[in-house]
Amino acid sequence: MKTLAQKILDAHTISGTCKTGEQIEIKMDQTLTQDATGTMAYMQLEAMGVDQVKTELSVSYVDHNTLQSGYMNADDHAYLQSVAAKHGIYFSKAGNGICHQLHLERFAKPGKTLIGSDSHTPTGGAMAMIAIGAGGLDVAKAMAGIPYRITYPKIIEVRLTGTLQHGVSSKDIILELLRRESVKGGVGKIYEYTGEGLKNLSVYQRATITNMGAELGATTSIFPSDENTRLFLAQQQREEDYQPLSADPGAVYDGLIEIDLSSLKPAAACPNSPDNIESIANLAGKKVDQVAIGSCTNSGYEDLMKVAAILKDKKVAPHTSLVISPGSRQVMRKLIKNGAFATFVDAGARILECTCGPCIGMGQSPKSEGVSLRTFNRNFYGRSGTLSAEVYLVSPETAAASAIAGYITDPTEIEYEDAFEKEESFVDDSMIYAPHPDPEQGEIVMGPNIKPLPINDALPNAFKKRVVIKLEDNITTDHIAPAGAKVLPYRSNIEKLSTFVFENNKKDFHLVCKENDGGIIVAGENYGQGSSREHAALAPMYLGVKAVIAKSFARIHLANLINFGIIPFVFENKDDYDLIDDLDDLVFENVYDLEKEPRFILRNATKQIEIPLLAQISEQDFELLRAGGALNYVRNHQ
Amino acid sequence: MKTLAQKILDAHTISGTCKTGEQIEIKMDQTLTQDATGTMAYMQLEAMGVDQVKTELSVSYVDHNTLQSGYMNADDHAYLQSVAAKHGIYFSKAGNGICHQLHLERFAKPGKTLIGSDSHTPTGGAMAMIAIGAGGLDVAKAMAGIPYRITYPKIIEVRLTGTLQHGVSSKDIILELLRRESVKGGVGKIYEYTGEGLKNLSVYQRATITNMGAELGATTSIFPSDENTRLFLAQQQREEDYQPLSADPGAVYDGLIEIDLSSLKPAAACPNSPDNIESIANLAGKKVDQVAIGSCTNSGYEDLMKVAAILKDKKVAPHTSLVISPGSRQVMRKLIKNGAFATFVDAGARILECTCGPCIGMGQSPKSEGVSLRTFNRNFYGRSGTLSAEVYLVSPETAAASAIAGYITDPTEIEYEDAFEKEESFVDDSMIYAPHPDPEQGEIVMGPNIKPLPINDALPNAFKKRVVIKLEDNITTDHIAPAGAKVLPYRSNIEKLSTFVFENNKKDFHLVCKENDGGIIVAGENYGQGSSREHAALAPMYLGVKAVIAKSFARIHLANLINFGIIPFVFENKDDYDLIDDLDDLVFENVYDLEKEPRFILRNATKQIEIPLLAQISEQDFELLRAGGALNYVRNHQ
Repeated sequence: MKTLAQKILDAHTISGTCKTGEQIEIKMDQTLTQDATGTMAYMQLEAMGVDQVKTELSVSYVDHNTLQSGYMNADDHAYLQSVAAKHGIYFSKAGNGICHQLHLERFAKPGKTLIGSDSHTPTGGAMAMIAIGAGGLDVAKAMAGIPYRITYPKIIEVRLTGTLQHGVSSKDIILELLRRESVKGGVGKIYEYTGEGLKNLSVYQRATITNMGAELGATTSIFPSDENTRLFLAQQQREEDYQPLSADPGAVYDGLIEIDLSSLKPAAACPNSPDNIESIANLAGKKVDQVAIGSCTNSGYEDLMKVAAILKDKKVAPHTSLVISPGSRQVMRKLIKNGAFATFVDAGARILECTCGPCIGMGQSPKSEGVSLRTFNRNFYGRSGTLSAEVYLVSPETAAASAIAGYITDPTEIEYEDAFEKEESFVDDSMIYAPHPDPEQGEIVMGPNIKPLPINDALPNAFKKRVVIKLEDNITTDHIAPAGAKVLPYRSNIEKLSTFVFENNKKDFHLVCKENDGGIIVAGENYGQGSSREHAALAPMYLGVKAVIAKSFARIHLANLINFGIIPFVFENKDDYDLIDDLDDLVFENVYDLEKEPRFILRNATKQIEIPLLAQISEQDFELLRAGGALNYVRNHQ
Repeated sequence: MKTLAQKILDAHTISGTCKTGEQIEIKMDQTLTQDATGTMAYMQLEAMGVDQVKTELSVSYVDHNTLQSGYMNADDHAYLQSVAAKHGIYFSKAGNGICHQLHLERFAKPGKTLIGSDSHTPTGGAMAMIAIGAGGLDVAKAMAGIPYRITYPKIIEVRLTGTLQHGVSSKDIILELLRRESVKGGVGKIYEYTGEGLKNLSVYQRATITNMGAELGATTSIFPSDENTRLFLAQQQREEDYQPLSADPGAVYDGLIEIDLSSLKPAAACPNSPDNIESIANLAGKKVDQVAIGSCTNSGYEDLMKVAAILKDKKVAPHTSLVISPGSRQVMRKLIKNGAFATFVDAGARILECTCGPCIGMGQSPKSEGVSLRTFNRNFYGRSGTLSAEVYLVSPETAAASAIAGYITDPTEIEYEDAFEKEESFVDDSMIYAPHPDPEQGEIVMGPNIKPLPINDALPNAFKKRVVIKLEDNITTDHIAPAGAKVLPYRSNIEKLSTFVFENNKKDFHLVCKENDGGIIVAGENYGQGSSREHAALAPMYLGVKAVIAKSFARIHLANLINFGIIPFVFENKDDYDLIDDLDDLVFENVYDLEKEPRFILRNATKQIEIPLLAQISEQDFELLRAGGALNYVRNHQ
């Protein structure tokens, strides 16, 4: 008697024991990348000498860097298109849509595994997949046929009952879960959704939940494959991909969360964390400068049809700017046909491309101290591009109602038509290009912004390094390697990118590293939460960071640190965090003993004390660290 | 017996003699600004202490800085909206469309005068207006009720005969004119269109010609008001604004250009100047990386309907990126309704906001060494954001045909339906806000990027300054004060903006000025061509530039230099250009004698020689210079 997650995990396990807490290696059926992480992933694939990908399906999407302020983005796109053609990878052109929305529409299959170099890859869980976000190097390894290693997660049952009321959205379900569980509540867990409440949740609604499950810090989230799944696949003209899949009756879970959908009310994640939840009723009346609807969380057909229902025959408030970015061309095309798109324009919405856009700070930064309501999944400090802005994460219904009023408005208190035109079956893959039929003929295009991969040195057995920064709890990968229009164009240029590391935490951090010949990062709980970008490990590696000592780590970032040869330590006693200060000199001796024993005694030479640490690594991980990272390891073993 | 231009000019002349070459002062009925120049214009209006604008109509548009990469753009928008409400100005919100397209649709009136702080303001000439581009300060003065001073221009007749053939566009008419006249051929001239060829040119087609007349260096261009004008106004539901207007029979012009429309073929302006004309037939077959359709030149209903006719049931070439930005929400709304918009999406076009966008380097920069075909009006070096790109200016028909083929393609050689659905009458002003009914209640919103206006010192009678840069011919305002995504956000922050001055011509130009306590600019012919941005005078003024010595000046920039207290000199003998080198020390003595006598003897202290110059100023101009610029002058005289 297995849970659904166990069924799929176990069927894909190649080595290890399928038991909570054990390390297992699983086969990845599918991979996806986006352009901000993809260039590195494919350079790593090429560095491994892989000719054709070994997966069932690999897709390279372009959705992040599409503003193209400077030649860098277009150079990246050209590289990605050429490398995909040559190595057996499907390529989705800029303008076609957001990777998770498109993957759900066109490629996600019940029962399969998917690894993607984007932290919201778990969106695929809406289609009964094990879909995991990872660093680009792990995705490159999967494309090379190397299985993915994870700690067998706890499986938590989320039992849904009841039905969402008028004005309440599946966004409010995941916000409720974030309220209860916090941004680190999901570490080491898969959330598996069950219960009779499922039958009223479409794949779109489920996708909002699995997508933002990433904000819980979860390994992934999963829904069963049922009649709603079949309907979605039929609508996408690929019913042959359907199979019913669910947990065995009586399957035993590692925990239970119960949510009565009928009792939920609209909510918002308040600045600056997705788990800082407040009810819309309590926020109502706050003046709103900007409303942004879109992103991989809430830009599907149903989301935007609800927005259209609320905007119909209304006008956006004069002091409020409403921007809408549909999730995919297919979605946009349907909305044009059925009139919803015209409703947006009539209401005074500004229409943006089908891309990630403002969600990752690519444009539409609010005004100074502006209040911005967004249907997105993250509201980390500064992510909008405006440090002084207040960003609230809300449902499409709350967003649309507030855009009209110009003030935060509870959508349960306004009238609009809940039922909308049934989604028409319509498929258009014409912006997805198949790989080159003759890969030999493919030619790789590398513009001047695409710099060779930096390669780490092997790990020394002893070293002395200075603390180059000391950080608080919940540092995100946005802090480490900022997103936004200024920095994202340099995702293929680590030297340049490294000059932005921690730019909002410490002035000229990169110069501090240079002066000290690298260094050590000290942090609090949940270090490295947020996006999967391996740049948050790669750029510090380039700057000579040898270890991060934290109270705890977020899962994907932990893997990225190991992949790039940076030792992740936690404090044996969390209070010892107070025994290290910025610019202390730390001595690491007999580092190679970590192979046998994760407990490690650090000497703080400045304070003349010893501090016990625990390396967060397995035996295999140590081999990667000793080599100076996974890429070195793979190349040494070819 | 007067020409049409003379009729309108003379009816608006407040002082001076209506004779070619004489200085006159004319009343401006209407003003327009856009956001990149508007913030300065309105700060100047406020500095003048003007409460309510004195014009018949003033409109503030937002169309340039709409990417919003950072808080600066949204802060500007909020300021513009607040200042418009308080001072009696209509405000068009971001997303509503491009200023010239919107002004044509909603406000342009035959027989009126219009001054706008954008060099493509002459677009309004398509509606039989005298529409002139100027610096923001001149627009502010017009709003304050101060007449606009110009030299009475030569009126050149452009007599059109015949009919455009299949695949040939009104864009090809203006390209032909640029081929014949060059980018400085229009200095001091108004091009007035006549002839039986007019009857087949709609207002949209005429607007492409008057718009890009700016590239000729002309004061403006003008078409008569006729049945086509009436039809356009009727379509815009404002037939009451129609009046027939044309030259008197037998009116005498200062020159004649004859163009047989039947003989024209599709053409392109090749890199990097709008007058570098080649036929498409000769360029055909060149691989195209990007096609961009839109901008104030070619984004009207008819332009985009022709694009739709060519894209119908076709797909954009896989290696080519096609972006389309409609000129206004009204245009977009019609295209959504009649199916053309769906055709764009089906073909694989990327849809951008209704703004200037890539035309001013706000996004969609081509890849390195990329070939980009654009329906825009300027292809100056670097303006696309990619220095190594080749930018070709073409018609919408050539652009669309080439996007499908992926190679430059002659649209006369492909089949498509020439006739398109007649434009439906549809008006939507819901994103244009009327001024505050009670101006006292209006509150000005100034975010932290909006810095107070820098104010110049009065002109000294003698000074010694070093040459801080020596430049070649045809330097554009894009060279002086670059556009693009990196710089445009600082249009309201002159201190910051000044650090970008001449960034592509001389490294750290602003530091050179700082070290030398300001300096002198030396340049060749046609200095300051291109956009009307007064920032190209304001930022050098801030850096301490006291004079520009050139072989000749572009009209708007000349006025801007005087407005900001920088003396414009030309060489009496053009060859003397060779007698001054970068970093030479120049001595200016008895500067106040310029009040009486424009001839001026400059001493080059480095070379120990004297060089005769001519100040390009009138007596009134000298008063402005002596005060340190027009703003000081107006304030001193209140």
